[in-house]
Amino acid sequence: MKPDTALPSDIAAHVAFALNEDIGSGDISASLIPAGTQAQAAVYCREEAILCGSPWVTEVFRQVDASVQLEWCAQDGDAIGRDQALFTAIGDARSLLTAERCALNYLQTLSGTATLAHHYAERVAHTRVRLLDTRKTIPGLRNAQKYAVRIGGCHNHRMGLYDAFLIKENHISACGSISAAVATARRLPGNKPVEVEVENLEQLREAIAASAEIIMLDNFSLPLLREAVALNAGQAKLEASGGINQDTLVPIAETGVDYISIGALTKDCRAVDLSMLFTTP
Amino acid sequence: MKPDTALPSDIAAHVAFALNEDIGSGDISASLIPAGTQAQAAVYCREEAILCGSPWVTEVFRQVDASVQLEWCAQDGDAIGRDQALFTAIGDARSLLTAERCALNYLQTLSGTATLAHHYAERVAHTRVRLLDTRKTIPGLRNAQKYAVRIGGCHNHRMGLYDAFLIKENHISACGSISAAVATARRLPGNKPVEVEVENLEQLREAIAASAEIIMLDNFSLPLLREAVALNAGQAKLEASGGINQDTLVPIAETGVDYISIGALTKDCRAVDLSMLFTTP
Amino acid sequence: MKPDTALPSDIAAHVAFALNEDIGSGDISASLIPAGTQAQAAVYCREEAILCGSPWVTEVFRQVDASVQLEWCAQDGDAIGRDQALFTAIGDARSLLTAERCALNYLQTLSGTATLAHHYAERVAHTRVRLLDTRKTIPGLRNAQKYAVRIGGCHNHRMGLYDAFLIKENHISACGSISAAVATARRLPGNKPVEVEVENLEQLREAIAASAEIIMLDNFSLPLLREAVALNAGQAKLEASGGINQDTLVPIAETGVDYISIGALTKDCRAVDLSMLFTTP
Amino acid sequence: MKPDTALPSDIAAHVAFALNEDIGSGDISASLIPAGTQAQAAVYCREEAILCGSPWVTEVFRQVDASVQLEWCAQDGDAIGRDQALFTAIGDARSLLTAERCALNYLQTLSGTATLAHHYAERVAHTRVRLLDTRKTIPGLRNAQKYAVRIGGCHNHRMGLYDAFLIKENHISACGSISAAVATARRLPGNKPVEVEVENLEQLREAIAASAEIIMLDNFSLPLLREAVALNAGQAKLEASGGINQDTLVPIAETGVDYISIGALTKDCRAVDLSMLFTTP
Amino acid sequence: MKPDTALPSDIAAHVAFALNEDIGSGDISASLIPAGTQAQAAVYCREEAILCGSPWVTEVFRQVDASVQLEWCAQDGDAIGRDQALFTAIGDARSLLTAERCALNYLQTLSGTATLAHHYAERVAHTRVRLLDTRKTIPGLRNAQKYAVRIGGCHNHRMGLYDAFLIKENHISACGSISAAVATARRLPGNKPVEVEVENLEQLREAIAASAEIIMLDNFSLPLLREAVALNAGQAKLEASGGINQDTLVPIAETGVDYISIGALTKDCRAVDLSMLFTTP
Amino acid sequence: MKPDTALPSDIAAHVAFALNEDIGSGDISASLIPAGTQAQAAVYCREEAILCGSPWVTEVFRQVDASVQLEWCAQDGDAIGRDQALFTAIGDARSLLTAERCALNYLQTLSGTATLAHHYAERVAHTRVRLLDTRKTIPGLRNAQKYAVRIGGCHNHRMGLYDAFLIKENHISACGSISAAVATARRLPGNKPVEVEVENLEQLREAIAASAEIIMLDNFSLPLLREAVALNAGQAKLEASGGINQDTLVPIAETGVDYISIGALTKDCRAVDLSMLFTTP
Repeated sequence: MKPDTALPSDIAAHVAFALNEDIGSGDISASLIPAGTQAQAAVYCREEAILCGSPWVTEVFRQVDASVQLEWCAQDGDAIGRDQALFTAIGDARSLLTAERCALNYLQTLSGTATLAHHYAERVAHTRVRLLDTRKTIPGLRNAQKYAVRIGGCHNHRMGLYDAFLIKENHISACGSISAAVATARRLPGNKPVEVEVENLEQLREAIAASAEIIMLDNFSLPLLREAVALNAGQAKLEASGGINQDTLVPIAETGVDYISIGALTKDCRAVDLSMLFTTP
Repeated sequence: MKPDTALPSDIAAHVAFALNEDIGSGDISASLIPAGTQAQAAVYCREEAILCGSPWVTEVFRQVDASVQLEWCAQDGDAIGRDQALFTAIGDARSLLTAERCALNYLQTLSGTATLAHHYAERVAHTRVRLLDTRKTIPGLRNAQKYAVRIGGCHNHRMGLYDAFLIKENHISACGSISAAVATARRLPGNKPVEVEVENLEQLREAIAASAEIIMLDNFSLPLLREAVALNAGQAKLEASGGINQDTLVPIAETGVDYISIGALTKDCRAVDLSMLFTTP
Repeated sequence: MKPDTALPSDIAAHVAFALNEDIGSGDISASLIPAGTQAQAAVYCREEAILCGSPWVTEVFRQVDASVQLEWCAQDGDAIGRDQALFTAIGDARSLLTAERCALNYLQTLSGTATLAHHYAERVAHTRVRLLDTRKTIPGLRNAQKYAVRIGGCHNHRMGLYDAFLIKENHISACGSISAAVATARRLPGNKPVEVEVENLEQLREAIAASAEIIMLDNFSLPLLREAVALNAGQAKLEASGGINQDTLVPIAETGVDYISIGALTKDCRAVDLSMLFTTP
Repeated sequence: MKPDTALPSDIAAHVAFALNEDIGSGDISASLIPAGTQAQAAVYCREEAILCGSPWVTEVFRQVDASVQLEWCAQDGDAIGRDQALFTAIGDARSLLTAERCALNYLQTLSGTATLAHHYAERVAHTRVRLLDTRKTIPGLRNAQKYAVRIGGCHNHRMGLYDAFLIKENHISACGSISAAVATARRLPGNKPVEVEVENLEQLREAIAASAEIIMLDNFSLPLLREAVALNAGQAKLEASGGINQDTLVPIAETGVDYISIGALTKDCRAVDLSMLFTTP
Repeated sequence: MKPDTALPSDIAAHVAFALNEDIGSGDISASLIPAGTQAQAAVYCREEAILCGSPWVTEVFRQVDASVQLEWCAQDGDAIGRDQALFTAIGDARSLLTAERCALNYLQTLSGTATLAHHYAERVAHTRVRLLDTRKTIPGLRNAQKYAVRIGGCHNHRMGLYDAFLIKENHISACGSISAAVATARRLPGNKPVEVEVENLEQLREAIAASAEIIMLDNFSLPLLREAVALNAGQAKLEASGGINQDTLVPIAETGVDYISIGALTKDCRAVDLSMLFTTP
Repeated sequence: MKPDTALPSDIAAHVAFALNEDIGSGDISASLIPAGTQAQAAVYCREEAILCGSPWVTEVFRQVDASVQLEWCAQDGDAIGRDQALFTAIGDARSLLTAERCALNYLQTLSGTATLAHHYAERVAHTRVRLLDTRKTIPGLRNAQKYAVRIGGCHNHRMGLYDAFLIKENHISACGSISAAVATARRLPGNKPVEVEVENLEQLREAIAASAEIIMLDNFSLPLLREAVALNAGQAKLEASGGINQDTLVPIAETGVDYISIGALTKDCRAVDLSMLFTTP
C-alpha cells in the first residue's frame, strides 16, 4: 500500500529557480529544431527504484510549456522495475528538450532518496522501530527530500527549527539542568513536542524525570541502548542517533528503541538512473 | 596551488530560501537561551576533505545576524585534515544555534562535491585529460555544485542550456544530418561552441568533417575510444561519456581523449562529516 | 517575567512588501525636506498596551536607511503606560518620515494583538487553562500575529496545515470513523500531534478511545463541557472552541478544559494608538 | 448600485505568500482523504455584510488547484443576508480543504472592512461629505484594504507616499512656512495634489492663501470646524481628521466639511463570520 | 538649482535582477585578478550631460561588495562637463570589475534620459509650459526613468494606470459621452485627477463643460491648439500631445498650452558616454 | 529566412515586474468600462520595422487575463510594412485596456532594437563580418535585448560576465603580460572562450602568440585594422571595437575583420511607432 503524503507549498518557486539556472538566456540547442515540431518521449528507469518526484516534474513541464501532455505510468511510491516506463510526454519537441534535464534531475534525486529510505525501512520491518530523517539536508531541498523520505516508507523528524524542541547541551547549560530546560520549554508558549538529547544514562534519568516526550540517545553503544530501553520502561520515546550504518542498523533497531535517526537519508544522495527516449510521434 | 574561481550571483537568494525552509515560524529551541547570551563556536571537519562553500556560510550568518564574527582557518580549495578547525564564530548564542545547521548543510554538501572532484582529478593527474561535470545536478544547486567541481580541480562542461550547443540525436534527425545540424548551429546567431554527440565511428567522421569543436563519444568501449583518438588525430576535442566509474576512469583517461564527463560528480553527493562545538567565550 | 519567543524567518520579505506598497514610486512629501537634514523623533503610546513588533520596526528602518539609529525604551512583552516613549530614532529627516507610517503600522497592529491576548490571559489566570489562537488570521501576517499572541501571554494552536493533524468531519467521513481517521493519521509518516474535533459526547468517547492527543469540543454548552471534562478524566487534552466571548470565557475556563481557542485573537485587530513626535535634534 | 473598482496588481504575489505561511511543508490532515476524492462545498455568511474579496479567493483556488470550479452567488459590493451562500466550489476534496482557510481569511477580513465602510457611509448619506481611509493599514494589505473601503462605499485618501503631497508640521518648519512649503511642492516636478495639515484657523488662512487643494483640519472641535467651513467659503477642500468615532461622525459631517478621514476603517478589522460546508457531491 | 526628487522603492529589487543577468554563474574574467588585490577607479563622463542614477550605482556596489568605498564628485541633477569625473571607487579589484558594467549601464541610461529632458526643458524655458513624460517607457524601468525625467527638469504625467484617470475614446463610448464618463469617474471612489483626451474642438467644449481637470489635445495642429487655448480661457489645464518633435516643440509651447507630453523622453534612450579608468591605488 | 532563436527563462518574472510598475493599486480608468464588456483590438505598426517581442506580449496578456485570445499576423523576425497589423486581441475590454501599454512597451522597444540590428546587418551583408552587441544594455533587459539583436540578424557577444573571458588592461597588468593572462585563463577550470583586448599591434602580436581565440582591436584606425588583419593572417578571430558609426561601419567591415561590436545596438533604443485600435466586436 502506497503512503499518502502531503505536498509542500514551495514547489512552484523551487522549480522556477531550477529552470532559471538551466535555461538562463535560452536553450540554444533546442532552437536547431524547427519551431512547431511535435514529438513524443518516454522516460525510463534503468534500475529498480521507488518512484518519487512526479509533482515537481509536472510543474517543470507546466512552466516550460503548459500545452505539453504528460501521462504517468506509475505514481510516487510505486516500486519500479528495471527499464520500466515512468511517464510519456507529448508536445512541442523544443519544449520537451528544454524541460527534460530539469525534470529528470528532480525525479532522479528524489527517487534516489525514496529508494534509499525504502531499503532502510525494509531492513527493520520486523521491528516496530520508525526510521527518521534529520535536518541534515541539501540546502533548498528540505521539503522535497522529507517528502521523498515519507514516500520511501521512513518518517520525518522535525521539519525545521520551528516544529519541535530539541534540547541539546547548549540549551541545558544555559538553563542550568535538563529539568530546568524542559520546564522552560513547557512554559514557553506554543505547545510543541519536547525532545532532549542525552549522552549517558544519568542524563537519560533526568530527561525521563523531566517528562521529555522524546529522548535522543546520542552515540550510545548497543549495550547502553539496551540498558536505556530497560530503564525507560516505555515512559518516553527513545531515539537512537549517531553512527548508524548498514551494519549497525538492525541490531540497534532490535534493542527496542522507538526511533532511529539517520543523517545519510538526506545529506547524501545517489541519483536513480533515468533516461528519456524520443519516439516518432 | 589553489584554483581561483568565480562566485555565482544567486548566493543571497538561495540562502534566503534555505533559511526559510529551516527557520520558518521561528527557532523555538534557541529561545530557551537567554536573550543576549554571547557564545563562541568552532566548526571541525571529521575527515580528510577539500573545503568548499565558505561564501554560502558567510551569507547564512549575515542573513541570520550580521553582527556575528566569523574567522576562517582555511579557504575554499584547501586540503583539510581530520579534526581540523574550519572557522570560528563569535556572537549571540541564539544566532549561532539558529544559523548552525543551514551553514553546515552548505559546507558539508559542497565540500563533499569538491572532495569527490579532487579524488577523481588526482586519479588522472598523470594524463592531460580534463574531467568534466554534467547538467545532472541537484535542482537549485547547479551553480554552487559547479563551483565546487572547479574548487576540487575538475572542470565545468556547459553550465546550462544557454552557453554551448550540444547536438544530440534529436537535433541531428531534425536537421537531417550531423553536418546540417552543425551548419545550422553556426548560422544561428550567438557564436557559441558546438559539441556533437556521436554513437559510432561513422558519426565521428561526420562530426569531424563538420568541424565540430567538441565531439562526445557516447558509451564507446576502450578499443573504440582508442580508435576514435587515432582517427581524430587532434582535429576536434574528444569527450568520453557514459559508464565512467572508479574502474574505468584511468584506462579511459589513458586513451588520449581530451575530456571525460562524469555525471556522478554532481548527481550524487556525499556530505563531509562536520561538527560545530561551542566553547565558553 | 516576559516570555522569550522565536522570530519567524519572513520578516525581511514581509517588510519589503509593506514598504513597497507605501513608498511605490517615491515619498514626494519627504522630498520637501532639504537633503541631509538630521532629525530626532520619539514614538509614544497613547494608551496602556503590551508592546509588540520591535523586530519588524527595526527591519523597516534598516531597509529604508541603515544609518538611522534606533534606541528602544522598552521591549516586546513590556506593559506600556499611557504616553510612554517606546523608541527614539535619530537620522536623516527624510528617512524618518518615509519609514514612520510603515513602522508604526507594524507596531500598532502587533501591539494591539499582544494587548488583546494579554487581557484574555489575565481573565483566566486563576485557572490552568491555556488560551490558543487559531488559523483565522490576517492573510500574510500569520507568523507575526502568532508571535504577538505569544508575546501577550496566550499560546499558539498549530501554526498552519503542516504542523499538526486536525481531524474534522470531512476526514472522519472519508476514513469511515474517528478511530479509523486517527489510526490513519498515526500510520502516516511524520509523527505529528493528532487532534480530533467532536460535536457530541459520543464522538468524544470515540476520540478518547482512539487515543487522540487533543480533542476539540466544538460549540459545547457549559454543562456539556463539564460532562466532557469528567468523562475524559485527564486522558486527552480537551480544547473548548466556538462561541467564546468576554462573557463566556471565564465560566468555560473554570470547567477544567485544558485549552480554549479564540478566533477573535487574530481574525480581528484593533490597533494601539501610537504617535511619532519630532524633536529638534 | 454597486461601485466599479479597480484591482491591484499584487494579488498573485500576496496570495502566494499567504498560502506559503499556511501550507508550508504540506497539509497533513488533507492527506487523510483518499487521493482523487471529489467534493462540493459552499461558503455561507453568518451575518449581514457587504461581500468583498472574491478576486483573492479566486486566486487562492487557482494556485492550490486550477481545476477546482468556483461559482459565485454574489459579487463584491453586494449586501449579503444572514446565512446566505456566497460561492460554491467543486473539485478534489483535498484541494478544497487545503484552500479553505486561506480563502476564507481573505474573504472575512476584506468583507469586514467593506461592511464597516458601508456602515459609516450610510450614517452620513444625508450629507455630501466623503469618508476617507488613511495610510494606517495592516502591513502588506494596503491595496486590498483600500479596495474594500471603495467596495463599501467610502473613498480612498492617498494610496501611499507616492500619489499626493501631505504637508505636515515637519515639512512646514523645514520650508519656513506653509506658503513656502506649498510653493516648493508646486515647483517640484510631478504635479501631484497638495494637501496641508493645519492645527488652527491661522494656519488654515495661510493654507487657503497658499491655494492648497485640500486642507486637513487636525483635531478641530465642532465649533472650530464650522468656523473653518465658513472661513474657507468653498475655496479649498476641507478634511476633518482625528477623534472621529460613532458619536462624532454625524455632527462633523453636518458641519459641511468635504471629507472626513477615519483611521479605524483600516487599522482595525473585525472579520465577518463565514463558514464552509461540504455537501455530498 | 537642483530639483529635489523622491526615490522609488524598487531600487534594490531591480538591481538584484540586473546583477543576476550580468554575473550569472560568475565573473570568470575577474577571477584572473589575484584575490584581495586592492584597486581604485574613477568614472568619467565623455560628453556634456546631466548626471542621473547615483542611487542605483550605490546599490550595485552595495550588493556586489558592501566594503567598496564610493566617493561622488557630483550629484544627480548636476550639469557635467566633458571628461569630468563622476565618482571614484576604492576596494577589491575583482569587485570593481564585476560591478563596473552594471553600474555604468544604470548611469549612462538614466543620465541619457535626464540630459534629454534637460535639453527639451531648456528649449521652452521662456514659456510657462511644463513638459511631461508618458507611460511609453522601457519595461521594468518606469520609476527610474520618471525619476530621470524629473532630475532633468521635466515633469511626470501619471506614473501608471493607478494615479490618474485618462479618459479616452473607449471609455467615452462605453459611458455614452464625455460628460457621462467624467461623471462616472467622479462618482467612483478614489478622488483621482480626471483627464480627458479629445480629438476636436467640439469634444473640447464637452470636456470643459464636464469640468475635466486636464484635457489632452490629441494631434491638434498649431492653429487648432491656439483656438483651443482661447476657447478654454484658463478653465481646464490643456495638454498638447502627439507629433511633438524638435521642430514643433517651441511653437506648440508658445500657443499657451499648460503641458506638452513627449513620448520620446522615455520610449527612446541614448546612453551618455561614460568610462571607468583604473588608477594605481 | 527568419532566424530561429532561443527564449530566455526570465520572461515571466520580468513581465510581472513591468505590470506591477504600471498597474500598481489598480487601473482606475478601465473601471469606467462596464464589467464584462467584450472588445476586439488590433495593433498596427506605423513604420517599417522588424517585429520582435511577441513572447513578452503573450505573457503580458496571460498575466493580466488568461482568457484574452491573441492572434498574431506576423512572427518575430518578419519585416513589417507601414500600417500593417501585428496581432489582434479579443476579450474583456478592461483587460485589453489594462494590458495594452505594457504589451506595446515591450513590442516597440524590442522591435526597435531588432530593426536597428537589421539595418546595421544589411549595410555589411556584402562582407563576411558578423556584427556583435555588447554588455552595454538597458539594466534588466539584457536577455530580451540580446534576443532582439539576434532576431534582427546581428549576433551576440558574450551574454554576461559568465560565458567568456574578456581580458582587458587590468587583467593583463595583474597577470604580468598578455600571455600570462591567457595562460591563467586556460588553466582556470571552465573551458570558456578567451578574448583579449589589445590597443596596438605589439599587443596584437602577443595575443596571437598566446593563441587567444578572439582579439578585440580597441579603437584601431582603418589602416591599423588592415595591418592587423594582414598580420593575423587568419590565426585568431579579430573584433573591431570602438567608434563605430554609420559612416565608419562599412569601411571597417571591408577591412576583413571577423566581428564588429557596436554598443549602440543595445545602449540606445528608439521605439518603433505602434498603435492599438479597438474595433466593435
